[in-house]
Amino acid sequence: MARPTALSGFPEFLPAERNAELIVLDHLRRTFELHGFASIETRAAEPMDQLLRKGEIDKEVYVLRRLHADEGAPDSGLGLHFDLTVPFARYVLENAGKLEFPFRRFQIQKVWRGERPQEGRYREFTQADIDIVNRDVLPFHFDVEVARVMAEALAGLPVPHLRMQINNRKILEGFYLGLGVADPAAIMRVVDKLDKLPADKIVQLLTDEGLGAEAADKCLALAQINATDSSFVDHVRALGVSHEMLDAGLAELAEVIDALPSTDDVTITADLRIARGLDYYTGTVFETQMAGFESLGSICSGGRYDALATDGKTTYPGVGISLGVSRILVPLIARGFIADRSVPSAVLVALVDEESRGASDAIAQALRARGIPTEVAATAAKFGKQIRYAERRGIPYVWFPATAEQTHQVKDIREGGQADADPDAWAPPPADLRPSIQPVKEQTP
Amino acid sequence: MARPTALSGFPEFLPAERNAELIVLDHLRRTFELHGFASIETRAAEPMDQLLRKGEIDKEVYVLRRLHADEGAPDSGLGLHFDLTVPFARYVLENAGKLEFPFRRFQIQKVWRGERPQEGRYREFTQADIDIVNRDVLPFHFDVEVARVMAEALAGLPVPHLRMQINNRKILEGFYLGLGVADPAAIMRVVDKLDKLPADKIVQLLTDEGLGAEAADKCLALAQINATDSSFVDHVRALGVSHEMLDAGLAELAEVIDALPSTDDVTITADLRIARGLDYYTGTVFETQMAGFESLGSICSGGRYDALATDGKTTYPGVGISLGVSRILVPLIARGFIADRSVPSAVLVALVDEESRGASDAIAQALRARGIPTEVAATAAKFGKQIRYAERRGIPYVWFPATAEQTHQVKDIREGGQADADPDAWAPPPADLRPSIQPVKEQTP
Repeated sequence: MARPTALSGFPEFLPAERNAELIVLDHLRRTFELHGFASIETRAAEPMDQLLRKGEIDKEVYVLRRLHADEGAPDSGLGLHFDLTVPFARYVLENAGKLEFPFRRFQIQKVWRGERPQEGRYREFTQADIDIVNRDVLPFHFDVEVARVMAEALAGLPVPHLRMQINNRKILEGFYLGLGVADPAAIMRVVDKLDKLPADKIVQLLTDEGLGAEAADKCLALAQINATDSSFVDHVRALGVSHEMLDAGLAELAEVIDALPSTDDVTITADLRIARGLDYYTGTVFETQMAGFESLGSICSGGRYDALATDGKTTYPGVGISLGVSRILVPLIARGFIADRSVPSAVLVALVDEESRGASDAIAQALRARGIPTEVAATAAKFGKQIRYAERRGIPYVWFPATAEQTHQVKDIREGGQADADPDAWAPPPADLRPSIQPVKEQTP
Repeated sequence: MARPTALSGFPEFLPAERNAELIVLDHLRRTFELHGFASIETRAAEPMDQLLRKGEIDKEVYVLRRLHADEGAPDSGLGLHFDLTVPFARYVLENAGKLEFPFRRFQIQKVWRGERPQEGRYREFTQADIDIVNRDVLPFHFDVEVARVMAEALAGLPVPHLRMQINNRKILEGFYLGLGVADPAAIMRVVDKLDKLPADKIVQLLTDEGLGAEAADKCLALAQINATDSSFVDHVRALGVSHEMLDAGLAELAEVIDALPSTDDVTITADLRIARGLDYYTGTVFETQMAGFESLGSICSGGRYDALATDGKTTYPGVGISLGVSRILVPLIARGFIADRSVPSAVLVALVDEESRGASDAIAQALRARGIPTEVAATAAKFGKQIRYAERRGIPYVWFPATAEQTHQVKDIREGGQADADPDAWAPPPADLRPSIQPVKEQTP
């Protein structure tokens, strides 16, 4: 066949790029597991009626059809999942009798959307989600926990500076209700346009919704409040609006912000402009921007959903955050964010001649038995050529098997140093054992 | 919504089952990486003309359609991949200029087939493939290498005894040519039915193909030869057929068999009945049976393909083996093969009261900092209830925070032992750090 070409919106990685992705995925999994989150995977396909239940993004779903399905039954009734939250809610309901609640899970999987590809938007991409759900009631400390776990995961990523923005829907709804607004959701939708429209246009739209000039100004003022500590509470109070739900929201948001100190890698802010479009959020909401890549939009989002999973009799409230792994990595990788080698191998065992392949294999096997990824040269070419074979793959060490004239030797091909070595004892420094990446941390806010 | 039900052919795992799968997947990845195989993933979707290139299994493909695609363009032209070999061949051609050859890769991904679900056959399932490809010519020692690496991976799996059967297409084709057969492929297709039809029926079909009675008997005799060492060569010679290609095949198969000693976990046999249906195999072929689960068919198969990936100018010969992870695990899990816990946590930190949650969080964080997966109790229930919380999840240790009356204590809730402990020093025995599974090894051949 002719040489195939890439498919727009379906990013694929070369081996050194994939190693960078693996480093990120391994770090995420390790952080989630340290906090007791259990891994699950859900099937890629869900019944269409489940996928379309929330209505909003129906146009983006890929529907499945069996190529030789019967006439008159063109679709399988199944579509590929477009996120991991809707399948997770289904999984919880389906297995409620077999799960232990509160149930903490992480889920790292591909999802698919048929939308127009652009940087940060793909047709196939990987998400990493954590959620905690409970039966009937989920105490608020779990909102703090998911935020803390994801902030810890983000802080360990070798990526540009991140800014996690947190808000609480109860603040917005309570504030609007305190202003006497009848339909707080309508106001929320207008204020949510603040990053697309100028402030005076927002005030205009708010007055179109029936707000007086002063109330509209207050809505705008609320949206402009942000802080890295709980000082935001006083700024909100200063606007002179009061409502029971507003009080509840302010207390919750202050609790999250106080529990999550900013670090060098991740700034945590209360940002009262964040609303999240999805209508199932009922309290805490999260968004995250990556420094220098703000045009990607939020790379890590989520919130509290009190009624997403319900079978009519029992409700399973939850709180969760979803990290857009591909949304971060594809643009970074396109800018050269790759691992220092294209193979896992730390050592290439050279081959003296084809007859001694067994001896080189035995050395490799001795190293592997002690956890050192090792490969044997493909051919008994001149040693200079074998060293270049290692160099092209980023393998740091070349092992020269013992011969009649000399003992086993191992060479660090980056620095050129060469020394005697014992296949049953030598090991590379821990930092050389596995592929690594240079952090991209230069872009601070 | 009403309680959803499982979807036939799309197996999903509960957390303790998923932990068993993760143990298997981690072991596979670790083995492949120790041997220098690089991880890649390919997109789930391929153009339909690529998927149907080999013709054989077109009816099993799931075609993708965007729900709101334009009228008159019902399909996207894409289908979900049904194996990892065809996408890998496409990936090699597409990226040939950027890959280092010989290229060793492993690929662990889900694949989809629209076939009728039954035990061992699913619509969504996970495969783990290793392949080595080179430009122009791939030396035979790579056939030995992929077989050895997969045999090592299989030997470390906590599953019933495995029997890897190896053959070489050149033996079959050379033998038939030596008998004067004009169309060896036709004879191969007949002999391949030996596990479905009785021997006399096979002889009948062979004579229908134009073979004399003696030649037909010899074909049957060849197919019945098997051995765990290279003694099979003499048995083939004794049939008195000679051909250059037969000689080449016998030498290759003997080399693989001699290099792969059987172990307690995996029996390696030369089995001259194995042909593999797929027409792209040109030399070594592999199949694997799991003791007590022979009805599943082969759980690990592959072979040498000299011309699968070609752009017309350059050919990339390869050799590979594909392990049916779901084909092994779904039946084993249905019979109770699960991890000893449903969460990664080794420790549950108990909660004295809600006010001291911060103190319990700090203990958990100290343990996590030393790599110990830890969670904090959800509520400050009575300690007996908190212990049962850990028990239900299979968490082996409960930590009781220091109070005015007593020091920190940690309890092994399986044995009941309880002792003083320091959050900055205590660690569980390594065997308790992560979930584990009891090997299912009782079924030996």
